[in-house]
Amino acid sequence: MPKIAITNALYLTLDNAALQIQRGNLLIEDDKITRLDKMATADANFSDYEIIDGSHRLYLPGLINTHGHSAMTLLRGVSDDVGLQDWFDSIWPLEAKFTADMVAKGSLLAIAEMIKGGTTCFVDMYDHMDQIATGVARSGMRACLTRGVIGLGTKPEWLAKIKEAKNFANNWHGQCDNRITTMMSPHAPYTCPPEVMEKLVDIAHELNLPIHTHLAETQREIVMCEEQYGIRPIDYLEKYHFFSRPNLLAHVIYVNPAEITKLAHYKSHISHNPGSNLKLGSGIAPVTQFIAKNMLVALGTDSAASNNNLDMFEEMRLAALIHKGNLQDPRAVSAAQVLEMATINGANALWLNDIGVLATGMKADIIAIDIDQPHFYPQTNLISQLVYSASAKDVTDVWVDGRPLMRNKELLTLDEEKIKREFASCYEKLMA
Amino acid sequence: MPKIAITNALYLTLDNAALQIQRGNLLIEDDKITRLDKMATADANFSDYEIIDGSHRLYLPGLINTHGHSAMTLLRGVSDDVGLQDWFDSIWPLEAKFTADMVAKGSLLAIAEMIKGGTTCFVDMYDHMDQIATGVARSGMRACLTRGVIGLGTKPEWLAKIKEAKNFANNWHGQCDNRITTMMSPHAPYTCPPEVMEKLVDIAHELNLPIHTHLAETQREIVMCEEQYGIRPIDYLEKYHFFSRPNLLAHVIYVNPAEITKLAHYKSHISHNPGSNLKLGSGIAPVTQFIAKNMLVALGTDSAASNNNLDMFEEMRLAALIHKGNLQDPRAVSAAQVLEMATINGANALWLNDIGVLATGMKADIIAIDIDQPHFYPQTNLISQLVYSASAKDVTDVWVDGRPLMRNKELLTLDEEKIKREFASCYEKLMA
Repeated sequence: MPKIAITNALYLTLDNAALQIQRGNLLIEDDKITRLDKMATADANFSDYEIIDGSHRLYLPGLINTHGHSAMTLLRGVSDDVGLQDWFDSIWPLEAKFTADMVAKGSLLAIAEMIKGGTTCFVDMYDHMDQIATGVARSGMRACLTRGVIGLGTKPEWLAKIKEAKNFANNWHGQCDNRITTMMSPHAPYTCPPEVMEKLVDIAHELNLPIHTHLAETQREIVMCEEQYGIRPIDYLEKYHFFSRPNLLAHVIYVNPAEITKLAHYKSHISHNPGSNLKLGSGIAPVTQFIAKNMLVALGTDSAASNNNLDMFEEMRLAALIHKGNLQDPRAVSAAQVLEMATINGANALWLNDIGVLATGMKADIIAIDIDQPHFYPQTNLISQLVYSASAKDVTDVWVDGRPLMRNKELLTLDEEKIKREFASCYEKLMA
Repeated sequence: MPKIAITNALYLTLDNAALQIQRGNLLIEDDKITRLDKMATADANFSDYEIIDGSHRLYLPGLINTHGHSAMTLLRGVSDDVGLQDWFDSIWPLEAKFTADMVAKGSLLAIAEMIKGGTTCFVDMYDHMDQIATGVARSGMRACLTRGVIGLGTKPEWLAKIKEAKNFANNWHGQCDNRITTMMSPHAPYTCPPEVMEKLVDIAHELNLPIHTHLAETQREIVMCEEQYGIRPIDYLEKYHFFSRPNLLAHVIYVNPAEITKLAHYKSHISHNPGSNLKLGSGIAPVTQFIAKNMLVALGTDSAASNNNLDMFEEMRLAALIHKGNLQDPRAVSAAQVLEMATINGANALWLNDIGVLATGMKADIIAIDIDQPHFYPQTNLISQLVYSASAKDVTDVWVDGRPLMRNKELLTLDEEKIKREFASCYEKLMA
């Protein structure tokens, strides 16, 4: 791997735990950041480096998307502006037709879209996970993958899914120099009866893996859980030992203060998905209450069937805007807080301590933003401009583990034209 | 002006008042759309046309931004994540320092940003309006301009402002082949005492112009109006004959059902500004209630000091998302509805009946979107992909009155580098 010196660059870093923009040189060697200068110095040592002029760019840690289902790009725009039941009625029969090949092609399009938008690491909970992991391996991206288990079929059916989930998690955890990690995933309290939940928790203990689920996304699922088990979803998870494992919870909208206190006690990580929650009419998660309890809040796009893009800049902006409007408090959730949610918090939410911040010794997961555009002027408060003014399309370059995945908006590890062509042909087959 | 044939293009049009995507040839002659084919036909008559291959693009009517203050790009990122009073405290002293030159340079950056993002027509309510109109004239954009009057100073002060507003409206209305139109603008009920309001309404009658104001943006201004005049803002406007003129109202958040009925009765046009309303913690306008009363709702970004960009795609997406989340109803405000808000409704909101839709005989205000990108796949439901997945950065070409303002993302009528350089130097002076 060549040594890279990005010279005279503006970059985002942490200074005494606060986000700061600094100017200097940024050195990469193999998969790591080896030096971050606080001034742009000319240096003879750069002679054996590939030198990149960073002067019109802002460099950030790659963005981390902590919840999604990548292959559902195949269902983008298929069911919009309808009630949740109508959404399920159109989405589920199509998902049932998904073949391994469709999942491979759908997730590759998602991976291309995410890299182009500055996302370097993503969570995927789905089926046919070997296909997705293979795409991640090829692309050079980082991912935390999990075969989600819906335990609603016959016992032989869900036992087969659990076996598949365990094998997948065991086979892929730590692959590609640790670019791929895995989790165990009961899909949701309302789709996993006690026996299924307990088995998945047991396997998470056996494999020493964290556990991921959808939680309290709609009012309806709270009622269903109460009707079926006489308790609310969080008590249900607690009863079946879910919280005995490190855990990541997606959505978390319908929770009362006592439940938030409980989740904070269990150090649950929250994946806040504002775009999907708004679009499906689910509601607005009480993020300011999570923050008040010092909980770890990260961001996720959810799938393209309910978002409908995989743009983490948009997710940051929504997270910074909707709580202000909803609470009628412009101080609710700051630009710096959402930038942390999309970077350092995302890393911590996935138990990864070597990404999410630009610092010496960290993995070189880095993105470059073209700030020489009207919407970044004045260039003084760049943290604010990133959150309130930037978009995924401002990303020009992406490195993961020090390897360039995109330079000057061109994907280097993936053939974008082929991906789009094969995706379109898969979509036709799906709709045939 | 050359004749242009955009061949084999996908374009958005209206069919029986419903938005439709069609494929065909789109012909422009001088400032007008002269033909729209419903099939892509080879045609010998194209020989004297400039031929543009439209096959990888989607063509839309230019987007219309119905509320803003363009020169406030100079204050982008200057005051974020603070309460409204703190925001005023930091913004107003800086605005007081604005010179005519600063307004010229600030608004030119805004114009560049808007053209690059596919906005072809915008409303501007501000001061030093001759500077802004001169920039609009040069740029080739379309605009509806108005010198906003804050009537809080001494009588000689506000009389001078009113005179300036009248002269500006009179001088510029219909200029540049009607690309520029004007309005009269009392800034808001809480900043315009009765005498000021009445004089502005009288002038609107005299010049036969519509009238524009900020209305019911915050709870606080309702209380202020009640304390000062013993009535709520809409009754105050009614009392001083505001509704005797065709009118455009920005924000309109704090209105009760009786007031909505009254506004519908007066056929008021609404400029919904979701981004700004969220960011300032103002709240969420009751847009579904306006629609239920068949009111005309258009979209606006408001200024870059409270948005913080001028991206109408983002405004469309926010308008389509926040009411769903707020009302917990995914059917609230559809993709097609917000696309109409940003195009045909925007045109009607500004009393312009020859833009806002691609149809034979309409003005050629047209933008092209690069849909050959992962986030537009599958390319089936393009109205949904435009609203839920696209961004300002997907715009490649812009024509206004048949004149190209941007081709392949390059501005043709403005020198972007010079604009950014001069803007940066203005900003330094402002902060000195």
